[in-house]
Amino acid sequence: MYSLTSNSEAARPFLTWQRIIDWSQEHYRIRTFAKDEKLPTRPGLVYLVQRGAVRLVGSAQVNATGNNASRLPRISPEEAFLGFVGAGQPFEIVAQSPFTLQSYAHVDQTSVLWMYWHDLDNWPHFRREVLDAFRYQHQRKLLWLSTLGQRRTIDRLLGFLTLLIEEYGEPSEQGYCLPFPLTHAQIGSAIGSTRVTVTRLMGKLRQRGMISTQGDNLLCIPTDSTLTRT
Amino acid sequence: MYSLTSNSEAARPFLTWQRIIDWSQEHYRIRTFAKDEKLPTRPGLVYLVQRGAVRLVGSAQVNATGNNASRLPRISPEEAFLGFVGAGQPFEIVAQSPFTLQSYAHVDQTSVLWMYWHDLDNWPHFRREVLDAFRYQHQRKLLWLSTLGQRRTIDRLLGFLTLLIEEYGEPSEQGYCLPFPLTHAQIGSAIGSTRVTVTRLMGKLRQRGMISTQGDNLLCIPTDSTLTRT
Repeated sequence: MYSLTSNSEAARPFLTWQRIIDWSQEHYRIRTFAKDEKLPTRPGLVYLVQRGAVRLVGSAQVNATGNNASRLPRISPEEAFLGFVGAGQPFEIVAQSPFTLQSYAHVDQTSVLWMYWHDLDNWPHFRREVLDAFRYQHQRKLLWLSTLGQRRTIDRLLGFLTLLIEEYGEPSEQGYCLPFPLTHAQIGSAIGSTRVTVTRLMGKLRQRGMISTQGDNLLCIPTDSTLTRT
Repeated sequence: MYSLTSNSEAARPFLTWQRIIDWSQEHYRIRTFAKDEKLPTRPGLVYLVQRGAVRLVGSAQVNATGNNASRLPRISPEEAFLGFVGAGQPFEIVAQSPFTLQSYAHVDQTSVLWMYWHDLDNWPHFRREVLDAFRYQHQRKLLWLSTLGQRRTIDRLLGFLTLLIEEYGEPSEQGYCLPFPLTHAQIGSAIGSTRVTVTRLMGKLRQRGMISTQGDNLLCIPTDSTLTRT
């Protein structure tokens, strides 16, 4: 597993992280969110997930199928799931037309702190780690784009689940499992498909033994699958 | 236009960039490539495009439609176009199974230099710029993922072209145009579609006045379109 969380927690002196949490509490720059609560983010700030997980979502406002009389694409509020930010990881939201990015607490009791980029100058070593985390996230998104370039929806689906579980999965009896649920609608929104199609194709993948589910609808990839052959 | 090239060239003292080129020549760490030549990249190195443009490509090796008798997905060499890296911009290639990333010279006379990350410690200000460039690229890829989450292929296509031209387009009589050609097969590989479908849908977008082409098959977005309403 390429878990940034564990890597960076291993590399990061515990004291720095504790000092940053103390700093954010002193400056009232930490807050806890309920499941699916929207995070009020602003460009220019860097956010750090202290506990829980954040869900990134993008909204397209470009649409080719608007009113034919007008050249201007109409507003379409289709939201795409863009990934998670786990504990210990940074994120930032830079609003850019014609697409906007948003973030939500994916699980209950998700705690997030924030600072200006120049605040990070107080902890130069940590600043470097944050930037390295963005490099890592960028590489992961390139892999994600690779799978979304596949023509067949079932290939995109399997590639997407593989990447997600590779990054966030935790070992279990079933193999590696996501530690939090993801709805079929959310999966569909990530791979350019619908909830109905995702449900049907997940059935196929399950039949072929390529994925499985555990307990409260947690997605797993068996240990004898692609993941563990790498 | 959100051109990183011009931003970073404006922000970067010309002398630093010249010193880096001199350094790479002294150390034989600069090379010029012909159009579509593959760049021999290695993880752990950071690459900088001095001139021309680099095309990033990803190959999926996960495939759900393999031999049903086996649980193991078979190898499928589907290549997806993942974007450009323009002059003045950095990139890195970190190989990661089950997807691999590759880079090609997109135009003739593309010149690329490379260094280890620790070499960048010689130019701390420039190091910071490189890391900021990756932050920027990461944000762009999130927007790109937003459009690939759209269900209709024509929406993905228009969103993709809009983002690409927004980032790399240059002003012209037609509006904003990509400075280098991109084939319909390459576009299809980025948005999970085929060359044939892309050709058909591009015809529709052209009819609706949402895109146009200039001279040697260069893609343009008219100035009264979404781009310039932002």
